[in-house]
Amino acid sequence: MPDHVYKLVEVVGSSETSIEEAINSAVARASKTLRNLRWFEVVQTRGEIRDGKAHFFQVHLRLGFTME
Amino acid sequence: MPDHVYKLVEVVGSSETSIEEAINSAVARASKTLRNLRWFEVVQTRGEIRDGKAHFFQVHLRLGFTME
Amino acid sequence: MPDHVYKLVEVVGSSETSIEEAINSAVARASKTLRNLRWFEVVQTRGEIRDGKAHFFQVHLRLGFTME
Amino acid sequence: MPDHVYKLVEVVGSSETSIEEAINSAVARASKTLRNLRWFEVVQTRGEIRDGKAHFFQVHLRLGFTME
Amino acid sequence: MPDHVYKLVEVVGSSETSIEEAINSAVARASKTLRNLRWFEVVQTRGEIRDGKAHFFQVHLRLGFTME
Amino acid sequence: MPDHVYKLVEVVGSSETSIEEAINSAVARASKTLRNLRWFEVVQTRGEIRDGKAHFFQVHLRLGFTME
Amino acid sequence: MPDHVYKLVEVVGSSETSIEEAINSAVARASKTLRNLRWFEVVQTRGEIRDGKAHFFQVHLRLGFTME
Amino acid sequence: MPDHVYKLVEVVGSSETSIEEAINSAVARASKTLRNLRWFEVVQTRGEIRDGKAHFFQVHLRLGFTME
Amino acid sequence: MPDHVYKLVEVVGSSETSIEEAINSAVARASKTLRNLRWFEVVQTRGEIRDGKAHFFQVHLRLGFTME
Amino acid sequence: MPDHVYKLVEVVGSSETSIEEAINSAVARASKTLRNLRWFEVVQTRGEIRDGKAHFFQVHLRLGFTME
Amino acid sequence: MPDHVYKLVEVVGSSETSIEEAINSAVARASKTLRNLRWFEVVQTRGEIRDGKAHFFQVHLRLGFTME
Amino acid sequence: MPDHVYKLVEVVGSSETSIEEAINSAVARASKTLRNLRWFEVVQTRGEIRDGKAHFFQVHLRLGFTME
Repeated sequence: MPDHVYKLVEVVGSSETSIEEAINSAVARASKTLRNLRWFEVVQTRGEIRDGKAHFFQVHLRLGFTME
Repeated sequence: MPDHVYKLVEVVGSSETSIEEAINSAVARASKTLRNLRWFEVVQTRGEIRDGKAHFFQVHLRLGFTME
Repeated sequence: MPDHVYKLVEVVGSSETSIEEAINSAVARASKTLRNLRWFEVVQTRGEIRDGKAHFFQVHLRLGFTME
Repeated sequence: MPDHVYKLVEVVGSSETSIEEAINSAVARASKTLRNLRWFEVVQTRGEIRDGKAHFFQVHLRLGFTME
Repeated sequence: MPDHVYKLVEVVGSSETSIEEAINSAVARASKTLRNLRWFEVVQTRGEIRDGKAHFFQVHLRLGFTME
Repeated sequence: MPDHVYKLVEVVGSSETSIEEAINSAVARASKTLRNLRWFEVVQTRGEIRDGKAHFFQVHLRLGFTME
Repeated sequence: MPDHVYKLVEVVGSSETSIEEAINSAVARASKTLRNLRWFEVVQTRGEIRDGKAHFFQVHLRLGFTME
Repeated sequence: MPDHVYKLVEVVGSSETSIEEAINSAVARASKTLRNLRWFEVVQTRGEIRDGKAHFFQVHLRLGFTME
Repeated sequence: MPDHVYKLVEVVGSSETSIEEAINSAVARASKTLRNLRWFEVVQTRGEIRDGKAHFFQVHLRLGFTME
Repeated sequence: MPDHVYKLVEVVGSSETSIEEAINSAVARASKTLRNLRWFEVVQTRGEIRDGKAHFFQVHLRLGFTME
Repeated sequence: MPDHVYKLVEVVGSSETSIEEAINSAVARASKTLRNLRWFEVVQTRGEIRDGKAHFFQVHLRLGFTME
Repeated sequence: MPDHVYKLVEVVGSSETSIEEAINSAVARASKTLRNLRWFEVVQTRGEIRDGKAHFFQVHLRLGFTME
């Protein structure tokens, strides 16, 4: 790791099903343009309510990747 | 949205199964008395432990709804 | 509860599948050496990314137990 | 003040024009149902963007009022 | 606890004598209209000063109660 | 919204006149290179002082936009 | 800047009109006794409510100045 | 209050007996040099331990006073 | 102090009477197994409510002690 | 500064030697692609441990630069 | 990492010379009793002042290690 | 310590070389006018960037001293 510098970006993913799926939707989308994604941290979990239930889980993430 | 004012309330839902279900138990209960619930934010996730495993997931939420 | 004093310890559990399972892996491991575990609080949720998806969910927990 | 107990509620007001007007829209709406409003604290300021400019200022407030 | 949902409200109690009494003044007042109060958390302690001493202790609390 | 992933960026806008104008200067500048800006959150408000008055209002914002 | 040390003080300014004016009232008052004021940061914005509207905007600031 | 500007200072008071007395020791000391002290906020409570008990309660306060 | 390293542990003490007594119950219990306790910091104060009054004060503390 | 808008990015630099060198490794790497870097803020300092000593100092920074 | 659970402990190290050395004094002391130390995070940096200069740098760390 | 009350002030020191030197520059400057400085806490570390490297380390400190 001696020479590595990481960069962090913040994204929000969403899913109708679960928090884990919302995390993966954001990671999958980010990995289309960012190579070398290494870790994520959950910053906040929120969502929309419709008809008396959680309609979307939205997870705000910080993603770290190696700068080449 | 020009004329809308939202109100926020805080509730704690619980579930023996998952964080998502704990969120929905709180949203479902709150929607019995509050119309127009729009969004939730997770404030804290905690739970009870029994017999060496998580027995309840308890999710503290902030719920927003439109004041009519 | 009049005479109880609780102690808190911090652990990080991990799971390839879900946040709930990461919580239970940490609680199960801690209960091998700590009797009387009573509650947990999630401090932070993070994880590793491999091949464009969450490879591990890592949950940092605070665990409370009764001091005998 | 010896006998006073205050209650706090959280609301979000909005305005197309200014932060001050968003605060007043929330205070005015809350004062329709809550007598004795005494103070506010700004918790967060956010807003919507349309066509490259702030379209709404939304101010999340904590309001305090005397319980009679 | 399987079916319980808790609601939280925020109040400020005051006392000329002590922090504990300020907590109890808020709890006592809230219990007139809210049944099933279960726990409190101190959010902030502040107060007024007169003649070079603390004239009032004001304690901002979050109160949790079971929704029936 | 089912398929949306949002990205967040942080900018600081400034204005000699008002906080609202500082917000709009940052939003306007960011919208030159980022399409689909949707919301902003104020992270911090600060400024420079000259000759005993606020010479610049500087507002640190988090901006969210849809990743296409 | 090599030899500069800054000191910070905290003040609260108020205005019946706007947040910007409350900031300037505090900066103007502080500059009567503190030379070399350089920057401000908003710590909190709150206010008094009378007759269903914001009667005062009170802005808590941290002010930085060069120690000579 | 229209023309008031408040200043805040931070002090730490201590007492062998109680948190309230530690608050009053700091307020009493500060009022020797600062006129017009109006309010206090508790920032942190800590203390020294000797012989298995709290030997001192130390309360870190923020004090507000009117600038004349 | 040149060679000292301190360790911190977190405990929760409780008392039916006062916050100070809850602190001392935790310190007394911890000192049975930890020698050289030096200081405490209050992390959070909460409690249980029964019959419309605070039934227990529970104080979450961080305790520091010298590692020998 | 009247027309300036700043953007902030977050990076993590590392060094086997010191915190200052970890900061400079991140700043140097970021300046290859970002012109006009103006300031940094330390968000968090952490590191890896090997053989009972800090093997890497990792510093998470927020970097500000002028948008042209 | 599939089966790993980490535990975290908090320590304070000190040094007359530098922050890095204070980190290493705490890590070295902790590694006498804890095997498998993996990472540290700086929680707070403080110190004592004597004769108008920093006499000790004290660094409060969170240390993570693998539970076997 | 029975009768001591401490006061805290906030300063920012800077150095071209290191964080430790920035701390000492602030402590040295403050000790010219404040006797009895006892401890410091680092509130934030930031700095200026020039030519792709940290040009100044600026450390925001809280300093405590005994009120006589």
